[in-house]
Amino acid sequence: MKAVRLTELGGPDKLHVETVADPQPGPGQVCIKITRAAFNRRDVFITQGLYPAIELPRTLGSDGTGTVAALGTDVRDIAVGSAVVIDPQIGWSDRTFHASKGMSILGMPLDGTFAEYVTVPAENVYARPLPLSDDEAAAIPLAGLTAYRAVFTRGHIVKDDIVLITGVGGGVQTFVLLFAKHAGARTVVTSSSDAKLERARQMGADVTINSKTSAAWHKEVRSASDGGPTLVVDSSGGETLAKCLEVARPGARVVIYGGTGGDTTIRPYSIFWKHLDVLGTSMGSPTDFRGMLALFAAGLRPVIDRVYRMEQCAEAAQRLLIAEQFGKIVLAIA
Amino acid sequence: MKAVRLTELGGPDKLHVETVADPQPGPGQVCIKITRAAFNRRDVFITQGLYPAIELPRTLGSDGTGTVAALGTDVRDIAVGSAVVIDPQIGWSDRTFHASKGMSILGMPLDGTFAEYVTVPAENVYARPLPLSDDEAAAIPLAGLTAYRAVFTRGHIVKDDIVLITGVGGGVQTFVLLFAKHAGARTVVTSSSDAKLERARQMGADVTINSKTSAAWHKEVRSASDGGPTLVVDSSGGETLAKCLEVARPGARVVIYGGTGGDTTIRPYSIFWKHLDVLGTSMGSPTDFRGMLALFAAGLRPVIDRVYRMEQCAEAAQRLLIAEQFGKIVLAIA
Repeated sequence: MKAVRLTELGGPDKLHVETVADPQPGPGQVCIKITRAAFNRRDVFITQGLYPAIELPRTLGSDGTGTVAALGTDVRDIAVGSAVVIDPQIGWSDRTFHASKGMSILGMPLDGTFAEYVTVPAENVYARPLPLSDDEAAAIPLAGLTAYRAVFTRGHIVKDDIVLITGVGGGVQTFVLLFAKHAGARTVVTSSSDAKLERARQMGADVTINSKTSAAWHKEVRSASDGGPTLVVDSSGGETLAKCLEVARPGARVVIYGGTGGDTTIRPYSIFWKHLDVLGTSMGSPTDFRGMLALFAAGLRPVIDRVYRMEQCAEAAQRLLIAEQFGKIVLAIA
Repeated sequence: MKAVRLTELGGPDKLHVETVADPQPGPGQVCIKITRAAFNRRDVFITQGLYPAIELPRTLGSDGTGTVAALGTDVRDIAVGSAVVIDPQIGWSDRTFHASKGMSILGMPLDGTFAEYVTVPAENVYARPLPLSDDEAAAIPLAGLTAYRAVFTRGHIVKDDIVLITGVGGGVQTFVLLFAKHAGARTVVTSSSDAKLERARQMGADVTINSKTSAAWHKEVRSASDGGPTLVVDSSGGETLAKCLEVARPGARVVIYGGTGGDTTIRPYSIFWKHLDVLGTSMGSPTDFRGMLALFAAGLRPVIDRVYRMEQCAEAAQRLLIAEQFGKIVLAIA
């Protein structure tokens, strides 16, 4: 079968299509014929070597949708030919609220979804939400899961919240905006790109602030949110997170799922005096995944940035690297 | 009446006893004849000018116990002569989980408990827990309240927790140890003083680690706690808080109520990858205060460091400044 492989580190350009052996489902496993996959920032980090425990060569890709092609022994209640989406987290136990020690993720260390076939444990396979197209179904797994847990499970959003979403446009933050609007909350979004802010407004963002042209963007956030947001979702870290903590309203929840901007110097005072909850999250549990799917089954639609052909994998990853996208970048496999 | 007054900034030595007018209870207020008061670090910070919105001259002191001396108009259900303790937070509403904007604290900006008489709103007066001596009752209000909220309301302690308590010996952390043992949890405490660690062991601390003689004390914490504490209570900030975040177990709660060690540089990764809850807290609500009193009514006893006479106020504050105490420093007023 054809697969997008990484055999050496060096950035997006190292991604290429080659022919590898078809995977065979072991006991309890399901083989999926992939129709569409989607990129996450972790795929790009892996090409750059910016990820723990990289093993090469490997087929990348965490997100995928397709149809069930074959069943291993001991698999019940899944019919060949079913349209499915894959939860890319293998081995997360629902018994604890954080990831299990033995957890693995499709695309590293396990061979992933950027291929014509992938095998996964049967419990990672879910019926595809009916309203979604192939492209849309491929777009939701990892980013939708991360956003769902950030907004609902960790952030406990309510309709009276005023939600600050920093750096809108990336895969996860676009889902955060989608979910926050669905919850009925007021949203304040930032981006360094006016074009992305315009897209966010089309999605229903209530206030948009350009964080590049306004060094004091956090003060604009405060005045636009009646004294500060009650819920913040951030994956920037660095100075952005410090400003989030500064403007957060007393009693606010500040949910973080990344730190691409590096370390943050915090004043403990801003956290304890305002009784803030600073809540870390990363991906999500099977319960979160089911909750996320239910929202899409009920009619929500993810935002697709562009669809690339499999052979354009390096180009697609390059677009993600320079953060030009708004929404998810999809890879057409079949 | 006699009162401990601060008329100019300059540290503990500026505290002195002088004669001032007796306070009169206004409508809805109660006048308390104070028998014992107690010091908090904020009293010392105020003498140094390290506190917001200081107005001088002022009578300091947040903690106090005594008997009801006189009632203002509109006060019902409180009998003159009752033994009471005072909730020093004036105007905290139970409707929100964080402090109200209009909140004030006895001792600054309001005249406080280091005096023969103090007037407070009737709703801030509570029956003194029967088992407690005068000294003990004076010791509990602000530090017991802060610790109660940190451990129970914010930390949600359970008996299976392994609790890291940094810098044991200060007023609040001693209550945190008391409450954590009462909850049945395993406790790991640190201090730069072997004498304080010995006192902590006498209180039931399960593991004691000298953070001065062991630069890698956080690694000792990890190995003593089966892979990291599940609950951390810290008021140090600075490098200590950074180490707490590093050793906290996945899914742990890290409760902070102070930052005397200054700013902290955090790696967002340690928070989001481990799904940590970093929870700020400061003092507590009336509900917290009642919960705290109930524990002392049921038999818990606070730890008293020393009792000073009113005229020794500067000496008492000096002891707190250099952090020599273990437990609360009490001031005998009458």
